[in-house]
Amino acid sequence: MPVFLDTTQPGFDDAFAALLNAKREESPDVDAAVAAIIADVRTRGDAAVIELTARFDRLELTADRLAITADEVDAAIAAVPAEERAALELAAERIRAYHERQMPADDQWIDATGATLGWRWTPVSAAGLYVPGGLASYPSSVLMNAIPAKVAGVARLVIAVPTPGGEVNPLVLLAARLAGVDEIYRIGGAQAIAALAYGTETVAPVDKITGPGNAYVAAAKRRVFGKVGIDMIAGPSEILVIADADNDPDWIALDLLSQAEHDESAQSILITDDAGFGRAVAEAVDRRLETLDRRAIAGASWRDYGAVITVRDMDEAARLSDRIAPEHLELCVADPQALAEKCTHAGAIFLGRFTPEAIGDYVGGPNHVLPTARSARFSSGLSVMDFLKRTTLARMTPEALAAIGPAAEALAQSESLQAHGLSVRARLDQLNR
Amino acid sequence: MPVFLDTTQPGFDDAFAALLNAKREESPDVDAAVAAIIADVRTRGDAAVIELTARFDRLELTADRLAITADEVDAAIAAVPAEERAALELAAERIRAYHERQMPADDQWIDATGATLGWRWTPVSAAGLYVPGGLASYPSSVLMNAIPAKVAGVARLVIAVPTPGGEVNPLVLLAARLAGVDEIYRIGGAQAIAALAYGTETVAPVDKITGPGNAYVAAAKRRVFGKVGIDMIAGPSEILVIADADNDPDWIALDLLSQAEHDESAQSILITDDAGFGRAVAEAVDRRLETLDRRAIAGASWRDYGAVITVRDMDEAARLSDRIAPEHLELCVADPQALAEKCTHAGAIFLGRFTPEAIGDYVGGPNHVLPTARSARFSSGLSVMDFLKRTTLARMTPEALAAIGPAAEALAQSESLQAHGLSVRARLDQLNR
Repeated sequence: MPVFLDTTQPGFDDAFAALLNAKREESPDVDAAVAAIIADVRTRGDAAVIELTARFDRLELTADRLAITADEVDAAIAAVPAEERAALELAAERIRAYHERQMPADDQWIDATGATLGWRWTPVSAAGLYVPGGLASYPSSVLMNAIPAKVAGVARLVIAVPTPGGEVNPLVLLAARLAGVDEIYRIGGAQAIAALAYGTETVAPVDKITGPGNAYVAAAKRRVFGKVGIDMIAGPSEILVIADADNDPDWIALDLLSQAEHDESAQSILITDDAGFGRAVAEAVDRRLETLDRRAIAGASWRDYGAVITVRDMDEAARLSDRIAPEHLELCVADPQALAEKCTHAGAIFLGRFTPEAIGDYVGGPNHVLPTARSARFSSGLSVMDFLKRTTLARMTPEALAAIGPAAEALAQSESLQAHGLSVRARLDQLNR
Repeated sequence: MPVFLDTTQPGFDDAFAALLNAKREESPDVDAAVAAIIADVRTRGDAAVIELTARFDRLELTADRLAITADEVDAAIAAVPAEERAALELAAERIRAYHERQMPADDQWIDATGATLGWRWTPVSAAGLYVPGGLASYPSSVLMNAIPAKVAGVARLVIAVPTPGGEVNPLVLLAARLAGVDEIYRIGGAQAIAALAYGTETVAPVDKITGPGNAYVAAAKRRVFGKVGIDMIAGPSEILVIADADNDPDWIALDLLSQAEHDESAQSILITDDAGFGRAVAEAVDRRLETLDRRAIAGASWRDYGAVITVRDMDEAARLSDRIAPEHLELCVADPQALAEKCTHAGAIFLGRFTPEAIGDYVGGPNHVLPTARSARFSSGLSVMDFLKRTTLARMTPEALAAIGPAAEALAQSESLQAHGLSVRARLDQLNR
């Protein structure tokens, strides 16, 4: 049974706080094992990666078999049914169009002193994308990570994907091809992250690593952070649906279940201003649950972390939403635009009754890699910005230096940084000669 | 003695690689101590913070004395000399003007299917800025962290600054006042980071923490990351100066020393196409070193990590620069703009002979919080973006869903996410009725 809350009932605040603070995931402590794997790959390179792949993926490789060749990709994607290929192509096209609009502009201007100021964006030279193997090997995630990198201008984009027992998902390879990925290696786990960060004889190192993974991958990403850039460490996923009574309870139930089916630690929350509608949705969830292949997973998520919250009005709904700071926020109300203005902390907002969150997972255009576990309070989904960096630019003329240099000198002195002040003073003295 | 390298000499590649890989800082392992401090503050709140402040800062506080009041700020800043106040005001004004131009734009458009897509930027609600006490308590850093937060629209901006023995730097308080900081607490170390992240009876929690600190502060920031956002963990700082022979060796020497005087683990590198000029700069460094108050620090940095590299031409200089990916890059050449185009990995570039790096530390306008230790390959300096987050927006019309929904359904099925597909299908079925 999910929890049923009502903001008009005593004890709501404590119950809501308990919901917010529920710990949904215990990370196993694999840090020592991961440290050893990384050290091994740094020392022995390919040989270590090959041994670890034999051990963890039951796959015997040689150095010249680490990469999946273009011919192998061709062969695998030839078998993809036309409908799936067309769907993936549409998704790639829409994701590319959306992310192309995200490209930030360079700027340069001359200020009142005559100084030229500005900045310039450039892509990271090489990026690595981790793709989980097995069940969680989602071609849509390949598109969502790889396309922003290529739109940003990353020249060398590498995928690491474990292929347990040698099996590889042809759709993952097709997604990589559509996104323009340059190299693919059949390696996974902490050893793949180590190879991407430090390089081996076969795998040249990258500058940035993104993509989801299991506890070993997450721990390895934390450890190599600093040597390379990483994206967020994703936590369990969540959806908040705010819906009035003018919705089909079955649609809303399916939206909640589309989050719950990801993972037992996923969280689905409904906020409604109509208690009867809330009960109708919960009943529809129970009916639909029985029919789902993944009912064990979705049922556990809904039972342990699901919630139906009745509020006085939609303003109260928006305030609760900001406290939840959901990864996904669906607004199934008459005026979703007006309600969206009131919800300031959310990874992605889906507006209106015809925008189920699943659209955003695949073909909407915006990225589906989004801040989880309340981190939408301070962070954003994946974007081209994750593959760009900004260099600031400043050029003084002698006149500009004469205008602002003395202030720099004064501040340097106040901070006891004498050489800082002298480096300005030496130039000012020449100007005054 | 700094190292002297020449790209035409045998062994250059190995020597340059050794320079790149030199480990300049050993972090003491304070993680266990920090974990205990954070747990204590989470459990006991103010009482823990007060005890730890008495122990580490030799300062006896009570809960109502944790905050530095507006009256205390008034009294302290009244004593600031007019010249220093004017310099700080000029710096604040220029930093604000630069960062206001960084504000990213919201966007919203309707695509060919009729779907409305876009994104919206909003500020984090509350941010905390850590300011070190004692020697490293730099008012310029207060401006560089606080102004971008306020330009971004952060409603509640909090400073934590330890005041060992009760002493506080009036310029830090003035900088906080000029930047519009809302609350200041006289607390420091891991206990301050814990209070900012988790809150106490007196200190309300924030969503994002930025600012430099010692090993305890850095370890605490790593530990609270996820609960709140953090900025980069700064490593030792570096400068690369690329200079031709048409410079005054003394100016270049001072620029190199202005980095070296920060810290014994700072690194200053000169690249020049004229070996004689390189030697002249090194001699000027030695002369200037004798006169500096901080000659012990600057001398150790120059001796242990300094380098003078002679190259064949400036194209080669740019290629080496990209391998160094320096935090600060000074281009003291005839056509700095052309050379800047060839240098793609740098935190900040200072163009021309009249732009010493120290200008950028104080009054140039761009931020002085920049990526260190080669991380300019994948990351950027502090900016308004660090205090903003992006929410993506998508709204389907029935027609848009009819156009792209079937592709989403097909991909959901291929990923075995049944409820995802059904949430789309239920709506499509109604449209087809």
